[in-house]
Amino acid sequence: MSLPTPAGLPVPPLKTIAIIGKPMAAGIAQSLSEIADFLVATGHDVVLENETALSTGMTGYRQMTPAQIGASVDAAIVVGGDGTMLGIARQLAPFDVPLIGINQGRLGFMTDIPLERMMPLLAEMLNGKIESERRSLLEGVVHRDGQPVFNALAFNDVVVSRGAGSGMVELRVDVDGHFMYNQRSDGLIVATPTGSTAYSLSAGGPLLHPSLGGIVLVPIAPHALSNRPIVLPDYSEIVITVISGRDTGVNFDMQSLASLQLHDRVVIRRSAHTITFLHPPGWSYYDTLREKLHWNEYPSVEGQLK
Amino acid sequence: MSLPTPAGLPVPPLKTIAIIGKPMAAGIAQSLSEIADFLVATGHDVVLENETALSTGMTGYRQMTPAQIGASVDAAIVVGGDGTMLGIARQLAPFDVPLIGINQGRLGFMTDIPLERMMPLLAEMLNGKIESERRSLLEGVVHRDGQPVFNALAFNDVVVSRGAGSGMVELRVDVDGHFMYNQRSDGLIVATPTGSTAYSLSAGGPLLHPSLGGIVLVPIAPHALSNRPIVLPDYSEIVITVISGRDTGVNFDMQSLASLQLHDRVVIRRSAHTITFLHPPGWSYYDTLREKLHWNEYPSVEGQLK
Amino acid sequence: MSLPTPAGLPVPPLKTIAIIGKPMAAGIAQSLSEIADFLVATGHDVVLENETALSTGMTGYRQMTPAQIGASVDAAIVVGGDGTMLGIARQLAPFDVPLIGINQGRLGFMTDIPLERMMPLLAEMLNGKIESERRSLLEGVVHRDGQPVFNALAFNDVVVSRGAGSGMVELRVDVDGHFMYNQRSDGLIVATPTGSTAYSLSAGGPLLHPSLGGIVLVPIAPHALSNRPIVLPDYSEIVITVISGRDTGVNFDMQSLASLQLHDRVVIRRSAHTITFLHPPGWSYYDTLREKLHWNEYPSVEGQLK
Amino acid sequence: MSLPTPAGLPVPPLKTIAIIGKPMAAGIAQSLSEIADFLVATGHDVVLENETALSTGMTGYRQMTPAQIGASVDAAIVVGGDGTMLGIARQLAPFDVPLIGINQGRLGFMTDIPLERMMPLLAEMLNGKIESERRSLLEGVVHRDGQPVFNALAFNDVVVSRGAGSGMVELRVDVDGHFMYNQRSDGLIVATPTGSTAYSLSAGGPLLHPSLGGIVLVPIAPHALSNRPIVLPDYSEIVITVISGRDTGVNFDMQSLASLQLHDRVVIRRSAHTITFLHPPGWSYYDTLREKLHWNEYPSVEGQLK
Repeated sequence: MSLPTPAGLPVPPLKTIAIIGKPMAAGIAQSLSEIADFLVATGHDVVLENETALSTGMTGYRQMTPAQIGASVDAAIVVGGDGTMLGIARQLAPFDVPLIGINQGRLGFMTDIPLERMMPLLAEMLNGKIESERRSLLEGVVHRDGQPVFNALAFNDVVVSRGAGSGMVELRVDVDGHFMYNQRSDGLIVATPTGSTAYSLSAGGPLLHPSLGGIVLVPIAPHALSNRPIVLPDYSEIVITVISGRDTGVNFDMQSLASLQLHDRVVIRRSAHTITFLHPPGWSYYDTLREKLHWNEYPSVEGQLK
Repeated sequence: MSLPTPAGLPVPPLKTIAIIGKPMAAGIAQSLSEIADFLVATGHDVVLENETALSTGMTGYRQMTPAQIGASVDAAIVVGGDGTMLGIARQLAPFDVPLIGINQGRLGFMTDIPLERMMPLLAEMLNGKIESERRSLLEGVVHRDGQPVFNALAFNDVVVSRGAGSGMVELRVDVDGHFMYNQRSDGLIVATPTGSTAYSLSAGGPLLHPSLGGIVLVPIAPHALSNRPIVLPDYSEIVITVISGRDTGVNFDMQSLASLQLHDRVVIRRSAHTITFLHPPGWSYYDTLREKLHWNEYPSVEGQLK
Repeated sequence: MSLPTPAGLPVPPLKTIAIIGKPMAAGIAQSLSEIADFLVATGHDVVLENETALSTGMTGYRQMTPAQIGASVDAAIVVGGDGTMLGIARQLAPFDVPLIGINQGRLGFMTDIPLERMMPLLAEMLNGKIESERRSLLEGVVHRDGQPVFNALAFNDVVVSRGAGSGMVELRVDVDGHFMYNQRSDGLIVATPTGSTAYSLSAGGPLLHPSLGGIVLVPIAPHALSNRPIVLPDYSEIVITVISGRDTGVNFDMQSLASLQLHDRVVIRRSAHTITFLHPPGWSYYDTLREKLHWNEYPSVEGQLK
Repeated sequence: MSLPTPAGLPVPPLKTIAIIGKPMAAGIAQSLSEIADFLVATGHDVVLENETALSTGMTGYRQMTPAQIGASVDAAIVVGGDGTMLGIARQLAPFDVPLIGINQGRLGFMTDIPLERMMPLLAEMLNGKIESERRSLLEGVVHRDGQPVFNALAFNDVVVSRGAGSGMVELRVDVDGHFMYNQRSDGLIVATPTGSTAYSLSAGGPLLHPSLGGIVLVPIAPHALSNRPIVLPDYSEIVITVISGRDTGVNFDMQSLASLQLHDRVVIRRSAHTITFLHPPGWSYYDTLREKLHWNEYPSVEGQLK
């Protein structure tokens, strides 16, 4: 179910490892220290992300910016929630650094190692018992008057949507040079498989398995009831043109934003970069889905909810 | 939010009280005995439903059939799940006996007193601190060649649906003598507010507050994407005619069933009967919804599920 | 199916009639003139809305503002689309002037007399063959620091929603003093039966029959998948409190808008006003639904869409 | 957007061509004769499907069964609707005969050449101006007590569903050896991209582009609201086990059926066969979607449906 381990992935020689914590979260200092101590004791070089060092007050480790980490380490351990992982994954995407996610609270979709079980699981993983998995990213470019004026990567989704004080937006969508439709709605979500469990799901989109080579387009509150989510091959080029609507904007993972003007075109493609997640042995995507989505929680009675 | 206490509801003089348990559930004998002892100790006459007496082996109380209970008691305490309540409520509907629901497992939509808190709550209620609430029922009559050939009550829903080995069914729907549409689908659910949290919800229907004077029509997997759920005033007469489809049937609360032939008409109206639930003081419908539907269970992270 | 004709509705003596056209639509001048000529010829007093007079250049009739029309006429004929009707209905709501809707383009939900058939239908209606129907409105008041700071009527919906550049909004919802839930989403739509065919429908809400005494709450892209639309009795008081979210706003029929701050409360109730629509004899709500929603348009083939 | 023309596809030498008509449709005899005459005139060998010959009374052509056609011809022209195409495509799937679909009524998803424009379009196509496109199929095997007892191909979908007179079915789903969930519902649809516009869409599934290497699982009226459609890579092996439910059955394209017993396992994989559709030059999948799904049909008014 997971992709085959990518050729060249340094499974035994995870020598230099970065530790990155949730921003502004002093409370995780002790967990990070435990991890760092363990890594040192097992012969690894430890690097601390500079903001993490600042917020936790940890000293005694090399400190690096995310870009330096990208250029220098064999893997990064991220402690926080899915939001923390989303932010750092976007920054490290150009460097192809494998990521290990540890969740300090409830299990996340991307941070799937619980804090209380991290030591034995990390030990196994550093011994080479690793499942690796590749996730795709999108890149989007805003064109205005024929010129690119903004671009960004998205790990979850690119969203074109209306402003607060306006009614619907009308968007024209073309795929690979074919006209798809003009759509009137609150906006349009273009999501990766990773993003299919995020905003896309709230707006009625399907779940996409991470190994699926697909991108899903999910209209938000579309005027036409037949404007249903559509899953395209991930080699598709999607062009969204703003036809009408005031205060329209585009955002990437809700983190990078740009205002749009009428006739602006947002061109969206799969990025050449990918993100590699490392999981403990026995990891299953379906276990995560089942827990996060409360599958198999039945009322105990037979008469209700059928 | 709850209806005003119906005029004449015997709130102080809940003198004679029936106890009804989940069918074939010997394990609840002790709970039932506790309730019976308490009722006797507080000066009530206790009646035991005859099947309940049989399955629990309880003796020493008058035993009655549901119909005798309906004719004789001031209220009935039902111990089981929503399925147990659904079955007994359908039988007692003609008699307007107020019902108190105690859940032996997970909280139900209709059995909203947890077993472990039942004694103090029952004590309060028998002291007159009661919130009463009325629920509507549907009655359905199958007409064939102009003659009524089957009828039943439904507390949750009347469902006309296709057979297993066939494709779609085509149903014509008329409301109050006006043609609504011909619908092709797996079937059509006609649900009360009580039923709106059951099968109807699974098929995409809205929640209806129990005090709403409404009936909801929910198509199951309709061929036309614009065939959306529609909520009608509960004084509406709904006529469903079978236009095509093999092995079509109608069921009432998944408990009474009848096969349908082409051109059979199912005529559905609000029943003249109602069902009265008694709740402990402070009861809130929204508390039940929130618990049953897992509202307010957020992942702790900011980046996923938006 | 339609409400009984309201007591005192002046069905024979529709003596003074206002004509109101779509704003800025000079092209409907001829249709309006035909109507005016016909009204004069049949002994009615004709009043022209002042903006309509301006945009069409029609002269020879008394001109009035909407407020003057509200105070003076027995009925108003509105020529345009549903948007035109929505705007004028909101203005005339305090005056209880019955409205007749004529659609200049495609049939509307509220403007259900086609332009090409208007003369014979108007003739019948003015002869007293009228079906009248009452629609409810909502009124909403924004409270800040305990003081009302904004209020407006809504014929379709009151919508609290997030700003363009922000993520989710978190809203607390209370109904009749009972806590319902904290909801994280793009926003929340509170719609009348009239509004149930508008934005609410796009966001996944059910259709509500105009005679239903109900209000529907429809979350927009809710974070929790179980946050489904819920229909409440229309005597409910709904309070929405802004818990978190930047650039949050509230709008009424997408026409009146106000910015919201954290902890602002929007209190929504059914208005004491209603809107009365007059229809030709034989009018059926279901005919309108069927045409507008393309019900009964089947592909001619048996294998697809089942 | 379409797949590259498969290596070896005989684009110039479409020498022998079969003609297949909608079953029992004598009315299409004239259209079929026109096609046959044209093919003969342009130097092709014409073969007539034997049932088609029977129902139309056409003579003078070699007649063959579908299996003989599969072994003998270079392409087949199918005249009818999507149901006709579905039936014949299933029969010809083992032979990899390219198919051309001509619709005698409304445009179909698979029969996308309108009858009235067929002659010039066929002429172009036979001159080599062809867009070819490959569609995937599923194969399903029912295992009972460890033995395969039934198998069939599906071009649209494999559906496991409940019987008419029973309540929910409970199904266990495993993917590639990983447990996904136990699901309680009316049933589960496993659909190809081709089937994503059929039953799957009615049950709330997304559209899948035909070039996507994906399979979608769509629960029908699932008990758990978070049991959403999920799209898997098309190399997945999906195993559905019947846990509970009476009268459960499995069907393939609603054409082949088998009853299921408790603990029966339905194993579903992508078939090694594919189906090749030939389209006229300039064909676009999105044009078909837009027409079939009535995209871009707006009410002319601004106030309704937003």
